Amino acid sequence: MDKLIRINTKTNEVVVEDLSEEMSLLGGRALTSKIIRQEVPGNCHPLGASNKLVIATGMLSGTPLANSGRISVGAKSPLTGGIKEANSGGVFSQKMAKLGLRGLVLEDKPEEKTTKVIYINKDGVQIENMPELANLGTYETSNKLFEKYGSKVGILVIGPAGENLRLAASIQFTDPKGRPARAAGRGGLGAVMGSKGIKAIVIDDKDAPRVKIADTEAFKAAAKRWAEILQKHAVTGQGLPSFGTAILINIINEAGALPTKNFRFGRFEKAADVSGEKMAELIQKRGGVVAEGCHPGCIIRCSQAYVDENGEYITSGFEYETIWALGPNTLIDNLDELAQLDRLCDDLGLDTIETGNTIAVAMEAGVLSWGDGQAAIELLKRIYDPNDYLGRIIANGSAFTGEAFGIDRVPVVKRQALPAYDPRSVKGVGVTYATSPMGADHTAGYAVCQNILKVGGDINPLKKEGNIEVSKNLQIATAAIDATGFCLFVAFAVLDTEDAMDTIAKLLSARFGKTFTVDDIVNLGINTLKDELAFNKDAGFTKAQDQLPEFFSKEPLPPHNTVWDFSIDELQAAKVN
Amino acid sequence: MDKLIRINTKTNEVVVEDLSEEMSLLGGRALTSKIIRQEVPGNCHPLGASNKLVIATGMLSGTPLANSGRISVGAKSPLTGGIKEANSGGVFSQKMAKLGLRGLVLEDKPEEKTTKVIYINKDGVQIENMPELANLGTYETSNKLFEKYGSKVGILVIGPAGENLRLAASIQFTDPKGRPARAAGRGGLGAVMGSKGIKAIVIDDKDAPRVKIADTEAFKAAAKRWAEILQKHAVTGQGLPSFGTAILINIINEAGALPTKNFRFGRFEKAADVSGEKMAELIQKRGGVVAEGCHPGCIIRCSQAYVDENGEYITSGFEYETIWALGPNTLIDNLDELAQLDRLCDDLGLDTIETGNTIAVAMEAGVLSWGDGQAAIELLKRIYDPNDYLGRIIANGSAFTGEAFGIDRVPVVKRQALPAYDPRSVKGVGVTYATSPMGADHTAGYAVCQNILKVGGDINPLKKEGNIEVSKNLQIATAAIDATGFCLFVAFAVLDTEDAMDTIAKLLSARFGKTFTVDDIVNLGINTLKDELAFNKDAGFTKAQDQLPEFFSKEPLPPHNTVWDFSIDELQAAKVN
Repeated sequence: MDKLIRINTKTNEVVVEDLSEEMSLLGGRALTSKIIRQEVPGNCHPLGASNKLVIATGMLSGTPLANSGRISVGAKSPLTGGIKEANSGGVFSQKMAKLGLRGLVLEDKPEEKTTKVIYINKDGVQIENMPELANLGTYETSNKLFEKYGSKVGILVIGPAGENLRLAASIQFTDPKGRPARAAGRGGLGAVMGSKGIKAIVIDDKDAPRVKIADTEAFKAAAKRWAEILQKHAVTGQGLPSFGTAILINIINEAGALPTKNFRFGRFEKAADVSGEKMAELIQKRGGVVAEGCHPGCIIRCSQAYVDENGEYITSGFEYETIWALGPNTLIDNLDELAQLDRLCDDLGLDTIETGNTIAVAMEAGVLSWGDGQAAIELLKRIYDPNDYLGRIIANGSAFTGEAFGIDRVPVVKRQALPAYDPRSVKGVGVTYATSPMGADHTAGYAVCQNILKVGGDINPLKKEGNIEVSKNLQIATAAIDATGFCLFVAFAVLDTEDAMDTIAKLLSARFGKTFTVDDIVNLGINTLKDELAFNKDAGFTKAQDQLPEFFSKEPLPPHNTVWDFSIDELQAAKVN
Repeated sequence: MDKLIRINTKTNEVVVEDLSEEMSLLGGRALTSKIIRQEVPGNCHPLGASNKLVIATGMLSGTPLANSGRISVGAKSPLTGGIKEANSGGVFSQKMAKLGLRGLVLEDKPEEKTTKVIYINKDGVQIENMPELANLGTYETSNKLFEKYGSKVGILVIGPAGENLRLAASIQFTDPKGRPARAAGRGGLGAVMGSKGIKAIVIDDKDAPRVKIADTEAFKAAAKRWAEILQKHAVTGQGLPSFGTAILINIINEAGALPTKNFRFGRFEKAADVSGEKMAELIQKRGGVVAEGCHPGCIIRCSQAYVDENGEYITSGFEYETIWALGPNTLIDNLDELAQLDRLCDDLGLDTIETGNTIAVAMEAGVLSWGDGQAAIELLKRIYDPNDYLGRIIANGSAFTGEAFGIDRVPVVKRQALPAYDPRSVKGVGVTYATSPMGADHTAGYAVCQNILKVGGDINPLKKEGNIEVSKNLQIATAAIDATGFCLFVAFAVLDTEDAMDTIAKLLSARFGKTFTVDDIVNLGINTLKDELAFNKDAGFTKAQDQLPEFFSKEPLPPHNTVWDFSIDELQAAKVN
């Protein structure tokens, strides 16, 4: 029986529980949302003692299965005020699963600021206050923790942003090379961890038992088929390993949906300069690494080691959305500057999507000039100083910065900044932004597949028809995938491969010794969304919050000159009920 | 027929309309809320072009009737996100009414910042951009406008806070001595005016016709009785003229409900040093003015001219709530420092209740020390500089400052800071804070009367019984009084005088030539609340927002050690439906 560990961050009390019957068949986002729904009051202050930070491995994590090593972090979001799950790669999930741990729950909060490190191995939990780590970046912190605990541990860590309770704070995870470059980025969950006085969690799976699989032979057979499915698909087998997610820069730009200058235009004239192709060319020339996995067993390998002109490592996990948010959206067109900004976000523990949008809002306010990469770098560096007031503003994200400067043109839903696809010209993902319980979040229902990439269907991105339905179905499927521990990118292959869902059902059945059907997987997604929507209702959300900001309905987006034209009531059909 | 003037702040177009049949029998808050409900989308950005700022005279304003010169300002609030009416004294309402104007509506917004002054007299409307007034305080601005337009005009003006779109920005009104010391303070309406690029509105009633009264004899008779009612009551006839509203400092302190050190205690040991009695003593000794009215015809005269040791004027309209927010709540116990802080708030155009609470939140965060009046003065001075980031934070109010510094103990409802009565020990007013469509607002249903002052009833302030009902009834009565143009303080006398409501009905009947009954007045209040609640529903409010922050339920308040113990569902009974 897998376990759940509860840690009281005020008293350091540790309770190890067997998972209940119901919980034992949940993982990832399904588990974080279930626990939050059951245990956190919807109306509590997200940085108060009543909120809980829940970390859960996927249902299939820790097995040798391809691309199953993702982890979910959940809480009431200090950014949106609603429930949040943020999903990350890195090595943490597999190590945690191997220790027989499905969930970690951080409860209560200390009365004074602490900088505690939680160390978990096969023998149990140790908690140590390490004030010497206070306000250190995630790179320096994880280096010190590797020195102390050995290079083979996995680390989950917050930076100065999380420690100082900033609303755009992420939780960073170390990758196989020990870099804290993977992020549970969205929703400010790093601030929840900061409010509990926890700087890092170190997971050590030395001598850990393997994950128990009920039917190893059936699992092995299905796992083999699973790997084939991923390798055979053009996106997961070739596109992502060659150019990373940044391959999308040229594609979305060509589609006229690359939000440029704070969502004013759908095309960026310098797109080619910050494209995946350009990145791959630079990395190859400079001796970096073009394709890396974020966890062992990844065969998609969309990550990379981006290096500077001297071949020195700058960053990895340098995603399309990151490049877009910090680049085309702010008119910064220098890939090296964008890599430095990404590195700063990872080191500060800041969500790159939120931060890029925030820089654009600050540019609207005249705090810095459009396209000025060096000024953006200096701006983010201010966040290391907890007493810098501008740094405090910027690290609180786009909605807050908009209010700080009186800007009324701020691209947020439920106070969370929009990702890298303009909703006027990718309407399916716009429906997801508007209606997901997560706030504006492309990963909650990635209709870019059907709208632009023509994977899993072909739905006109510029028209309303079909986009409510596709978003709803994807929101359900995504909630299920986020429960399994699979990387969301498996969806490209799953949508195009007839026996993929059946293969997942076989894997879950073999893992748990209980028959899972495809319908069971769909219901897992539906039930997770229901938990999330019920939480948000208690938190005070209504259909009024399921909307894009006004300007998307008023300003046509070049080159297609589309506007956002869904009514509030039409959008409600995208939600499960 | 009274008129409504609409001014397009982008094009300077002016449209003068006859009031519709329905609107012609509305005034003050009933009119502002009706127009906002009908014309402003609930989901619009409060600082965007779709919001409107509505200024309306009371139904009885401009007549010689005692205490009928109040004015209402309404909009979608940038602070709360819901509908807002803020009510002020000063000479503006009577002059506006004498010009035959019931309402002014500022619409749209300019593309670039402007600093326009709108001048209205019997001949019409003139609009002039006066960039030389940009970022000036309200005192200097109104002095320059008196020089330009003569000393007999009335002025409505915003300060640097409103111009810079700060969420705690007020709209200030000049009093009979030309001081911009009266405020439509709450809800950040000054920022709405700032977003429309309007620095001030000057009203000149030279050669204006009198307000048309349908039955002058009946009006005169009822007006005489009305004056008697006010003069005979102990609070309106003696208490308020002698000591101003600050007479409440000792009373509320004695009752154990004076929120002290950011709502930690119900008594302040230095209360006597900042009391109304102390203020009156100082003013008398120094040669100030103990009792002044905020508009001609006021016979309550709760205002004053507070002077320094040299007899130089510092401030007026130096209210109980102002003294409390800046004083006991921050532990600042020097009345001269509090007077300077009040003056700064008026000059910057900042709500004193919001600002005092914000200073306390900043003290929680360690930005300044508890009780340090000089530091508080320096803090507010930073707000004159629009490029000062800390100033920007502070002028955005308590909820924002709480988020800026990661403080989870912030006394707000619907993001608006709580006024001067601790809801744990004045439960009736707590019900009003929680359920009023205005956010935490004592004037929306002042159950302090029945809870503490024992006017209009006797309801235990420490127990739940009866407090839902009294708040509901007061919310209705208040909405009606705010429509008439009466000062809310008439309620003390009205609650205790049998024929008072009937006298008001007679006054309205005589003014409009249409029979008003007491039931009609009650329905006016109910219908106004319905408009407001419907707007808020569209804006996304649910019962989840009708709550006090968690800490009021968890921390007992000395000396009575009471906690806030109404459930969400119990509170809903205080709302009209």
